[in-house]
Amino acid sequence: MLYETNETAMKLEAEGKRIVKLNIGDPDEPTSPQIIDTALKAMKSGRTKYSSASGEKRLREKLAAIHGVPPDNVIVTTGSKWGAFSTMFLLLKPGDNIVLPSPHWSAYELIARNLGAETRHLRTRLCENWRIDTEKLQLLIDQRTRLLVLNNPNNPNSKVIDERTISEMTQISDDKGIKVLADEVYSDISFVKTKSILDFCASNILIKSFSKTFAMTGWRIGYAIAEKPLIERMTKLNQITLTSVPAFIQDAALTALELKDEIAEKSRQKYQKRADLACDLLTRTNMKFSKPDAPFYLFPKREGLDSERFALDMLHRGVAITPGTAFGDYKEHFRIALTAPDNDIRQGLNTICEALE
Amino acid sequence: MLYETNETAMKLEAEGKRIVKLNIGDPDEPTSPQIIDTALKAMKSGRTKYSSASGEKRLREKLAAIHGVPPDNVIVTTGSKWGAFSTMFLLLKPGDNIVLPSPHWSAYELIARNLGAETRHLRTRLCENWRIDTEKLQLLIDQRTRLLVLNNPNNPNSKVIDERTISEMTQISDDKGIKVLADEVYSDISFVKTKSILDFCASNILIKSFSKTFAMTGWRIGYAIAEKPLIERMTKLNQITLTSVPAFIQDAALTALELKDEIAEKSRQKYQKRADLACDLLTRTNMKFSKPDAPFYLFPKREGLDSERFALDMLHRGVAITPGTAFGDYKEHFRIALTAPDNDIRQGLNTICEALE
Repeated sequence: MLYETNETAMKLEAEGKRIVKLNIGDPDEPTSPQIIDTALKAMKSGRTKYSSASGEKRLREKLAAIHGVPPDNVIVTTGSKWGAFSTMFLLLKPGDNIVLPSPHWSAYELIARNLGAETRHLRTRLCENWRIDTEKLQLLIDQRTRLLVLNNPNNPNSKVIDERTISEMTQISDDKGIKVLADEVYSDISFVKTKSILDFCASNILIKSFSKTFAMTGWRIGYAIAEKPLIERMTKLNQITLTSVPAFIQDAALTALELKDEIAEKSRQKYQKRADLACDLLTRTNMKFSKPDAPFYLFPKREGLDSERFALDMLHRGVAITPGTAFGDYKEHFRIALTAPDNDIRQGLNTICEALE
Repeated sequence: MLYETNETAMKLEAEGKRIVKLNIGDPDEPTSPQIIDTALKAMKSGRTKYSSASGEKRLREKLAAIHGVPPDNVIVTTGSKWGAFSTMFLLLKPGDNIVLPSPHWSAYELIARNLGAETRHLRTRLCENWRIDTEKLQLLIDQRTRLLVLNNPNNPNSKVIDERTISEMTQISDDKGIKVLADEVYSDISFVKTKSILDFCASNILIKSFSKTFAMTGWRIGYAIAEKPLIERMTKLNQITLTSVPAFIQDAALTALELKDEIAEKSRQKYQKRADLACDLLTRTNMKFSKPDAPFYLFPKREGLDSERFALDMLHRGVAITPGTAFGDYKEHFRIALTAPDNDIRQGLNTICEALE
């Protein structure tokens, strides 16, 4: 439903309809001119040739330094999604399963299913403040479990998992001999401080992206950090699939990292304001929701809602949102992405609130 | 061996060694400034957001018009290699097989093997002027054959398959109910006129690239043309892997297409001259080779050669070439890519010729 809604929204837009797009985590701010400038200089200086399947040396070294690992443990990927896909492609066999705290980003379930693997949901609930029950986790893991996927901060509910829970979860995974695939694409702009999976156990896999922190969604660049043998297998997979991320895009990413503190701080402040605005508006309704710990999403609940029907209805009223069913068994929820200009957010939220009155 | 040689060459270069790179089909000319200019304008105008998983509408329409198919039959891919991978990923199951005229581009075999499928080589030989024996093709196809891969013009021997042979091959495939995956990435700059697979049977799959024609190897953009149901499955695969090719790169590709006649003609002339130069030098040796019908490669044979050892030896003398074993059972052959400046080609070929004297 996540991708279907988005393709429909883009189609309506292409037909000339005005759509307030609160359906996808695609920051409305432009990519910084300094980042674009680096890309241009790189293109002009001939950085338009094939490059290494594991990523440009300088970028890998910089990322390695940031995360305190050797460069051999880093691979540059075509977005964090490619990091997720290639990890699962390499580690899962048909009949295997992954455990996934839910609500969850759609792509994980779609990838696993596509590879013939099963997804086991570790369901969390708004009324329990999205608490992860680690005893339940124990019960979900079996002989065919290969991965525990941890998306922290979480998409769609913008919760940050506390250190103790991560510690318990990684301990359980480690005891059972399964790896944690941690998606921390929102961590650099989180409102609340987060712990990285790399602080726990070396056998885990981290995937990150330039998309959210630097408003570079369309550039398709991210990276993965893992043990060297897995990185080598991912490199071989790149050789027979994508070859490499364009070198000029990797150069631009390097500039982005140099500007990280400044850009991330600005982004954090902006999304905190938007989150406050949205919470303020939603508080006046009879929807239930949790205050986000991080950008970009709110995941409110309205008793009795059929969110797929509601999302379609909203689309025809010019507001794109994503139904809760895109993120697991959350029919009464829907996701609002605060990645549109403030006025759009206000207008979109008003339309939503009116419709639910 | 193709990718190993290249990674080693890049490593030696990074260490400051001067390497004449005749090992990879990566044109030495820069990408046209007009193409770069379009990319810049697109980046500056905000074309840095997520875009459609099937490709930008305008680019798909333009490609559809060029090939005389509906836009729904076109998908933009992250290089033609992604077109090959996703086709095989979607159509092959473990235990299936593909038939592949050999010598062949390494990636096909590596992809098939990675997916648990077998590759059956339809071996051709220099002494028979690389003639494809269609009777042998009949014998190679069985119940588990899913694809016939046709790379025309061929990498590494730069032969163009004549119309009658393609017609016979597609007829056989069609009779047996298998699809042809045609890789025509060199066709637009071929010295000899080529027929496209689309002129034969509608159920076939064409993959193309902007890399070779427009010196855009590092931009990672190509496309596939196939029946709508397969394009839809490829689109869904893009949604869970790469999302999309950057919109600003797709805009640049559109400019490339507008300049196609001019760029392709210039490129063709340049590579024809280089091919003449190389043939002239090789004629004076006791190597055997066929005159290329297309850019970029020569695939000479030297009786008794151990081409892997030879390639390694050449690398230490500062010349990168690819051993014939990277392309199938061709130990006595090696591949020379004429994608370096004329002086480098001359110097590289001289080093090769001296070593083989």
